[in-house]
Amino acid sequence: MIVDTLALVGTGLIGGSFSLALKQAGAVREVLGVGRNPASLAAALERGLIDRAADWAEAGQADCILLALPVGETATVLKLLAPHLKAGAIVTDAGSTKLNVVAAARAALENRFTDFVPGHPIAGSEQSGPGAARADLYQGRKVVLTPQADTRADALATVTALWQATGAQVETLDADLHDRVFAAVSHLPHLAAFALVDELARRADGDTFFRYAASGFRDFTRIAGSSPEMWRDIALANCEAVLTELDAYIAALQALRSAVSAEDAEALLAIFSRAREARNHWIHKKT
Amino acid sequence: MIVDTLALVGTGLIGGSFSLALKQAGAVREVLGVGRNPASLAAALERGLIDRAADWAEAGQADCILLALPVGETATVLKLLAPHLKAGAIVTDAGSTKLNVVAAARAALENRFTDFVPGHPIAGSEQSGPGAARADLYQGRKVVLTPQADTRADALATVTALWQATGAQVETLDADLHDRVFAAVSHLPHLAAFALVDELARRADGDTFFRYAASGFRDFTRIAGSSPEMWRDIALANCEAVLTELDAYIAALQALRSAVSAEDAEALLAIFSRAREARNHWIHKKT
Repeated sequence: MIVDTLALVGTGLIGGSFSLALKQAGAVREVLGVGRNPASLAAALERGLIDRAADWAEAGQADCILLALPVGETATVLKLLAPHLKAGAIVTDAGSTKLNVVAAARAALENRFTDFVPGHPIAGSEQSGPGAARADLYQGRKVVLTPQADTRADALATVTALWQATGAQVETLDADLHDRVFAAVSHLPHLAAFALVDELARRADGDTFFRYAASGFRDFTRIAGSSPEMWRDIALANCEAVLTELDAYIAALQALRSAVSAEDAEALLAIFSRAREARNHWIHKKT
Repeated sequence: MIVDTLALVGTGLIGGSFSLALKQAGAVREVLGVGRNPASLAAALERGLIDRAADWAEAGQADCILLALPVGETATVLKLLAPHLKAGAIVTDAGSTKLNVVAAARAALENRFTDFVPGHPIAGSEQSGPGAARADLYQGRKVVLTPQADTRADALATVTALWQATGAQVETLDADLHDRVFAAVSHLPHLAAFALVDELARRADGDTFFRYAASGFRDFTRIAGSSPEMWRDIALANCEAVLTELDAYIAALQALRSAVSAEDAEALLAIFSRAREARNHWIHKKT
């Protein structure tokens, strides 16, 4: 047992999978669920993701509280939770951006900010909600924690142990570097996939196009099936780094456009070859 | 038996899988292989994709000759083949672009152009070469044929029957519409994936970024593992339609950039929601 009671704020894919994995590992005794959506709480209860629904006062008495919801809601939720936090309670989150979460937590938790451990599990799915939760979601995945200079060492140790119990590999990263890295390898691809599908869908003859889309299109656009609310929040929360990445990507596409327009076979072959080599190198290292 | 002898010009994934499927279906007696790469021909022989290697004179005596190579080589190959074509021999191809293939075939085959059936199997993999060939590659997949006004009806019927024997669903499409549709749903996503990976790979600190790339990145960039030569040829062969799609995509990304920059939450939610809905609709229709 790592903690006695865990409270989930948000009982969807991320929070629910955290709970299932910890229960399976015997790392927690009781899991409470807090959320505004009664149907989602009922589904979480039904699936055994939580043992019971709770209010903010009860959640504040848990040993550890995980925020697993769109990052735009962090400030609001922490303000509701803060007055009820018992001494020693640890608060952590699973948001995809970290600088804005750290700022929101610092403002909302004030002197209790030292009990806050910012985190980001690098796992997910284009599926969301309690129905998508599974005990093995974090198995072998990375979880990045971005502790601050004043984060309590024992709070960091407890959150690390919890994630390790889910089967994840825990790493720490500077929050600013975290946000720049994920803007490039996660936020940009999501935005690029959403933009491509939306551009096709808005065409009057879009159906003709979708009719011939095949497996390349399916995989390229898988992440365009992700939660619109979650990605709206991420794009806004990590606005600066996302804009930097969008600019770099648009410039790369414009360079590619120039090469196609100039029928520059060598330049095209160079771009495609470098990309294939880099991706193959990455895949082999990863597996 | 649909044809007695088949000649493959190109014995990689596409040609090799065509042969395996036809042999399994008992639709062909003997398969010849033509290619400049002795190692590739040897591998094709070893895997049973072809029964023997052949030269242009022998290939021209086959009942049906399939071109399965980068579209940029179509003109050269057809000029080598043309003088040897026996009466009644049917020529077809598996190229991802059709207007340029039709033009190349018309120029190279002259009065024998009526025996040419332009085709495009909508199947493939980021893997290539004889080792990647498999008998079920075309099972349940679409094959688009773009016959011209002067294409012989019985040649079209034979090529249709061959593809159907591989398990594919055969459709016909106007060559111009084909090229515009595939520029949008196939060529653009490939170029977009190549551009994204190359942009990251060219950064001095690229390794830090790749280190945290996960499953969303993996699927988005799967097609960036495709053959650089094949995609160079496609980009050049379908230049006009590809430029139109690149422009539309860059404009969509710029609109998205404006929404992020203006912190326009509603506009972002609208783009992401439309995209998710369109993709889910497509996936459900498809499966």
